[in-house]
Amino acid sequence: MRFERYEYVTRLNRVKEAMHRRGIELLVIANPANMCYLTGYDGWSFYVPQVVLVELNEDHPVWIGRGMDANAARVTTTLKDDCIIPYPDEYVQSLVQHPMEFVADCIHTRNWDRKFIGVEMDAYYFTAQANESLRHGLPNARFIDARNLVNWVRLIKSPREIEYMQQASRILERVMNVAIEAVQPGVRQCDAAAEIYHAQIRGTEEFGGDYTAICPMLPTGVGTSTPHLTWTDEAFKPNETTIIELAAARHRYHAPMARTVHLGDPPQNLADTAEIVVEGIHDVLKFVEPGVTCEQVEAVWRKTIEKHGIVKNSRCGYAIGLNYPPDWGEHTISIRPGDKTILQPNTAFHFMPGIWMNDWGVEISEPVLVTDDGCEPFADVTRKLIVKDI
Amino acid sequence: MRFERYEYVTRLNRVKEAMHRRGIELLVIANPANMCYLTGYDGWSFYVPQVVLVELNEDHPVWIGRGMDANAARVTTTLKDDCIIPYPDEYVQSLVQHPMEFVADCIHTRNWDRKFIGVEMDAYYFTAQANESLRHGLPNARFIDARNLVNWVRLIKSPREIEYMQQASRILERVMNVAIEAVQPGVRQCDAAAEIYHAQIRGTEEFGGDYTAICPMLPTGVGTSTPHLTWTDEAFKPNETTIIELAAARHRYHAPMARTVHLGDPPQNLADTAEIVVEGIHDVLKFVEPGVTCEQVEAVWRKTIEKHGIVKNSRCGYAIGLNYPPDWGEHTISIRPGDKTILQPNTAFHFMPGIWMNDWGVEISEPVLVTDDGCEPFADVTRKLIVKDI
Repeated sequence: MRFERYEYVTRLNRVKEAMHRRGIELLVIANPANMCYLTGYDGWSFYVPQVVLVELNEDHPVWIGRGMDANAARVTTTLKDDCIIPYPDEYVQSLVQHPMEFVADCIHTRNWDRKFIGVEMDAYYFTAQANESLRHGLPNARFIDARNLVNWVRLIKSPREIEYMQQASRILERVMNVAIEAVQPGVRQCDAAAEIYHAQIRGTEEFGGDYTAICPMLPTGVGTSTPHLTWTDEAFKPNETTIIELAAARHRYHAPMARTVHLGDPPQNLADTAEIVVEGIHDVLKFVEPGVTCEQVEAVWRKTIEKHGIVKNSRCGYAIGLNYPPDWGEHTISIRPGDKTILQPNTAFHFMPGIWMNDWGVEISEPVLVTDDGCEPFADVTRKLIVKDI
Repeated sequence: MRFERYEYVTRLNRVKEAMHRRGIELLVIANPANMCYLTGYDGWSFYVPQVVLVELNEDHPVWIGRGMDANAARVTTTLKDDCIIPYPDEYVQSLVQHPMEFVADCIHTRNWDRKFIGVEMDAYYFTAQANESLRHGLPNARFIDARNLVNWVRLIKSPREIEYMQQASRILERVMNVAIEAVQPGVRQCDAAAEIYHAQIRGTEEFGGDYTAICPMLPTGVGTSTPHLTWTDEAFKPNETTIIELAAARHRYHAPMARTVHLGDPPQNLADTAEIVVEGIHDVLKFVEPGVTCEQVEAVWRKTIEKHGIVKNSRCGYAIGLNYPPDWGEHTISIRPGDKTILQPNTAFHFMPGIWMNDWGVEISEPVLVTDDGCEPFADVTRKLIVKDI
């Protein structure tokens, strides 16, 4: 197991505490990161419905998933066999039966069907139909929206979690430097992406890499006006900008980062904006400490860039840690106006103040750990617009 | 654009025809592959809600997504500006407003709010909350479950789509051979995975590779008793089996395949089972032609393995093509009892008859194209248990 037994026990108890406060007696967890957090379960099987059940008075969670994945629960968790419940393959992508009907039957069998049941209403893999099938199968239950309940428990990282994020950060430093090196005129974008992937997964001699919850993003040219484009077969062109946003992952814990590379003399607005972004990051890193709120962090950033006449209308950060595709963000804190969450020690976030204009953009970002008396960036990569002579 | 204009027009008309037959006047599409199929939209932005709307009497679909992704729609589609509708960033992962409320407002604005509206009830990124927010915002609409409506239109591939899958297959052949080569005693699993990723993304000199909808899976040792485990830092061990299941992708079109490698003299049951699986594949490839049903294909497979006393309780194939994480399967046809779909020319499927026992398993699979008078495997990689001397 990737964590000591007591750490899983603590996690489970924290989740039960949060359930208790909200009047939830049974929690149905469909988010793969939450499933992994509570049981260790790890496999790319989340493309079919699967859940972990947490009942307030039971010592152990229950895993329910596809028959062929039950052995993955045996290999990656310490759950006993009576807590691993496989459903028959006929449920998979069927029009006449849904796996959530099977889950409802299991809840019946355990006499949990009249309880207050929490469901993750906005979790990626808890579809509209999953919700309807579950509710239809449990007519006597009272349902409560428990979205992000486990995510909020995940917000403060344990020493071992931080260690994995630091290991991911050692990989990240290598990966980002490989990526910066690979962006050269004449090099196909796909060849640069191949080098990036190789470095991500190989990791270091000590720490192997894991797949990341978002693929490397590599917008170039006019594509830098938007953050989520990937690569093509085209070669990088002289006098064009490329944004590199990627992460490294260790045991599913992420350290993400963005850098911007320009091939040739950069346009003045790009160079100026990059400098302002770096100044904003600097001011934020000086400001963050336990006790400040997310919106106060955003205000510091905004004040710095407003001095230079720049406006940014999107959030500039979010919590990070354990995750599965499609997102390395944890869906709890956002660094933006209105988020009154108070930062606490051992909170990790991606400070990601991307600027996207009509036909260009710049991204320079840092993964950050809130410490006991301030904060520190997880990784050390040259923090500036990377300009290459051509 | 990756396809000619007429191909997008044809796709749109086929979807409208299917809508018309089911009494759907407006279709809300949340599945990223379906969004890409109809508009060309391509970016890793599906971690926030985004949709394509198809109205029965409109010439063009409408894209609605996060503000920062609107430029990705401009870069990857030919939609006009009035068909690209960005929502403000405050909707993202907010507890007080959901992007689907914005989508409902857009539908109102266009006076489509009293229509029969189809929604993809079991699409990965159409969450329980997305469904509730949309319905709540459109009290006068009549909702219809349109799950997989576009997926079924995608079932029969066009010549250009087949071309992309053939290009993906050229990459696949290289990737699988790289993977087989990389599995050696003493090699860290993560280093093998790094080589696999490098080959996937680099592609060939002619065709760059794309990220695949499922990561490479690499269960080893007792892990081969289940299909969806990934790699660790551990080295491959002598006298252990490793299953390699992976794909290559070209412009998001997939060619998946599985092979099994044993380091040393294989146990008799593994060697025997692998031979039976290969015989089953052989019999299926001889049998498949336009006009036969999916369940008849499964029956041929079952008859072959039953002769040898092997039972398999999970489906042994599914449609493949254009896809995004978390699944390269298209959620239409399944090769299993009860699936009465008649195979037609230019249907592509992954024949994937994995066998998983208590503590071992074997996977040998083929991506297959149904042709005018039979079928052919997309790729050519040694089809047998790979045994390496140690």
